[in-house]
Amino acid sequence: MRFSKDDANKLLQIMQARRDVRGNRFINTPIEDEKLQMILEAGISAPSVGYSQPWRFVIIKDNKIKESLVQNFEDENTKAKAIFKDKTLYHKLKLEGIKEAPINIAVLYEPKEEAVLGMTSMKKMGEYSVVCAVENMWLMARALNIGIGWVSILDEKKVLQSIKAKKNTQLIAYLCVGYVDKFYEESELKTLGWEEEKELSEVVTLC
Amino acid sequence: MRFSKDDANKLLQIMQARRDVRGNRFINTPIEDEKLQMILEAGISAPSVGYSQPWRFVIIKDNKIKESLVQNFEDENTKAKAIFKDKTLYHKLKLEGIKEAPINIAVLYEPKEEAVLGMTSMKKMGEYSVVCAVENMWLMARALNIGIGWVSILDEKKVLQSIKAKKNTQLIAYLCVGYVDKFYEESELKTLGWEEEKELSEVVTLC
Repeated sequence: MRFSKDDANKLLQIMQARRDVRGNRFINTPIEDEKLQMILEAGISAPSVGYSQPWRFVIIKDNKIKESLVQNFEDENTKAKAIFKDKTLYHKLKLEGIKEAPINIAVLYEPKEEAVLGMTSMKKMGEYSVVCAVENMWLMARALNIGIGWVSILDEKKVLQSIKAKKNTQLIAYLCVGYVDKFYEESELKTLGWEEEKELSEVVTLC
Repeated sequence: MRFSKDDANKLLQIMQARRDVRGNRFINTPIEDEKLQMILEAGISAPSVGYSQPWRFVIIKDNKIKESLVQNFEDENTKAKAIFKDKTLYHKLKLEGIKEAPINIAVLYEPKEEAVLGMTSMKKMGEYSVVCAVENMWLMARALNIGIGWVSILDEKKVLQSIKAKKNTQLIAYLCVGYVDKFYEESELKTLGWEEEKELSEVVTLC
């Protein structure tokens, strides 16, 4: 299949319009099954080392499970606040949307017991495959005008317990998924001056 | 910005048409600067934890450096062949395109010294941000009808030496980038029967 210049430009637009969505932007309009399906299809269309497809997706709608996740976040964020005690801005930020988002998705990595093609030297390739799936899901959600927020201020082991994950799985990402009242024009952390945007020239070198 | 159903469908098409390209498919047509630029723009449009943008991209065209990478691959693949000694197919596969691809890109992670928002509990979020950049680049390349192959059968430390990387950086991905004579219809490892495709129903659970 050949793609056109317009297709590439549209892809860049989707990438540049993707945002990390927090609780204050989610609305409670339910996500249609076919749209959730499309987000998951995007996930399993990601590259995976040795075609191992080591991803597992756990869909969470249950309020009790969500509450345990919120508690998990609060505990971890208390530690984080101590680390950022001199940064006033940190303490004002809303950093999760677990209950506000109608759907949460835990994205897990299930390692294979046997050797995997392409993982004999770089052992993290399995995890990295699952991260590629997360990025695909995030882009697809944005193309469907649905927001995703990746919550990382969590104790991984407690998340796995809360969602009753299989023993040998690892948490790669905890995603909050839902429609939003609006997408910000740029990263909120850029707007608020938490970090400056890096130009391409700062991060690319020729060798 | 609102996207249409056609946009989302086009995005899924790009994702599903993306392939891991090996040396036997690359052709030596040079990549135009503006297309390389667009692939890199896609990279820096990825999400990053705490807006840390911890990615660094090293563009490699030099033949001597490529030769050291090929040697690195050969050494690591000799070990891999011993692991897969009973799998005849492994020994027939072409698993890199370092010299065949006109451009190689090493994608590095440069950790910050200070604490990063969102990385206080899950320490791998910085690396994962760089993986998201790789997936964005891969999708953009495909939309531009350019192939990318991710070579992972490499000794990371030797790669960093070969490309004279800054001391505190880590290798996330070594990419071979170039036009191709064709993109396969499906993953080569699926076609050859190395692994079977997993259905959505096998990898999604409700909690």
